Amino acid sequence: MADSNALDGLTQALRKLPGVGAKSAARMAFHLLQHDKPGALQIARALEHAVQSIRHCALCNTLTEQEVCVTCANPQRDRSKLCVVETPADQAALERTLAYRGLYFVLMGKLSPLDGVGPNDIGLQKLFDRAVPKDEHGQPLPAASREVQEVILATNFTAEGEATAHVIAQALKSRGMQVTRLARGVPVGSELEYVDLGTIAHALTDRR
Amino acid sequence: MADSNALDGLTQALRKLPGVGAKSAARMAFHLLQHDKPGALQIARALEHAVQSIRHCALCNTLTEQEVCVTCANPQRDRSKLCVVETPADQAALERTLAYRGLYFVLMGKLSPLDGVGPNDIGLQKLFDRAVPKDEHGQPLPAASREVQEVILATNFTAEGEATAHVIAQALKSRGMQVTRLARGVPVGSELEYVDLGTIAHALTDRR
Repeated sequence: MADSNALDGLTQALRKLPGVGAKSAARMAFHLLQHDKPGALQIARALEHAVQSIRHCALCNTLTEQEVCVTCANPQRDRSKLCVVETPADQAALERTLAYRGLYFVLMGKLSPLDGVGPNDIGLQKLFDRAVPKDEHGQPLPAASREVQEVILATNFTAEGEATAHVIAQALKSRGMQVTRLARGVPVGSELEYVDLGTIAHALTDRR
Repeated sequence: MADSNALDGLTQALRKLPGVGAKSAARMAFHLLQHDKPGALQIARALEHAVQSIRHCALCNTLTEQEVCVTCANPQRDRSKLCVVETPADQAALERTLAYRGLYFVLMGKLSPLDGVGPNDIGLQKLFDRAVPKDEHGQPLPAASREVQEVILATNFTAEGEATAHVIAQALKSRGMQVTRLARGVPVGSELEYVDLGTIAHALTDRR
């Protein structure tokens, strides 16, 4: 084996990347050192720059370099709608549809009790404060004077995503907020024969 | 999408890693910035340290921080045998067998004409100079006064690895060097019924 503390250290460090094990990390390290040293330095600089400059948007919690991200700062957006997603990637998928002009709240995670991720770990309180702000006496603003009139839950349709949506819906409904969920149903272009039963059952229940 | 040049830059940089595309890079960037900023800085520092300190062993061409790597500097090794491998990972696999006590030469690649990788790109000349050194008149040393008496080809048994072995064998045999190849045959623990035909044919030819 190549004898090098620097190489071992690099391989160990690369294992911090999600989905990268010992063999992949070694392959990455060899590749960078053998074929792409400029690329290695580019990654190093990008990591340091990002760690230093990126923080959470004060309004929607996504990753940004500004105090408030571009989407939240855009005066063209409909500020009465707030769409709750798990990750910036989910937000990007919604944006690509061009079908939504409201604002977002990015949880940066999902409730996952088995992994020890509770409501405090994914910024649910920040969402509640954003959707239902408090007045100067610490009381929730009445519905008429709130900026956000509807919260659209767009967490993933997985067990954790559904649980997260359920918890948020309960909490916000108790504060008098209108809460909706992305429709479940048959995907565009699919044939019923090949759609799973749970999806068809939901599509039947939610028919319109 | 999260609006951030630093984030975009990081995602672009992470795509330099082998086997990492746009989605994986974005997932890695989000994970590091959201859950593991110390890990991100650790990777950055390890990359910079490795790029600065790692070079090629003067004897065996592997990655090392010294002028000559630990294996080549070890006086316990049999200096008359030189095992040619493609990568440090292959060398590590051979070392784990504890069945070889000679030295190595690490090509850091393989001949691959389709990818434009020719003999000059993988340091074949360095191997030839290592196995058959020249005297002060630029003539190859006679066989009796060479340190290396046998070159064992342990490139992979793929099309490129076989081609690489063939080219090296031709060149070294023409210089009067004894050249051997790792045996092809039935893997330990396997049943003939499930072994591919090419392997069985080779095992028959090379029976002993």
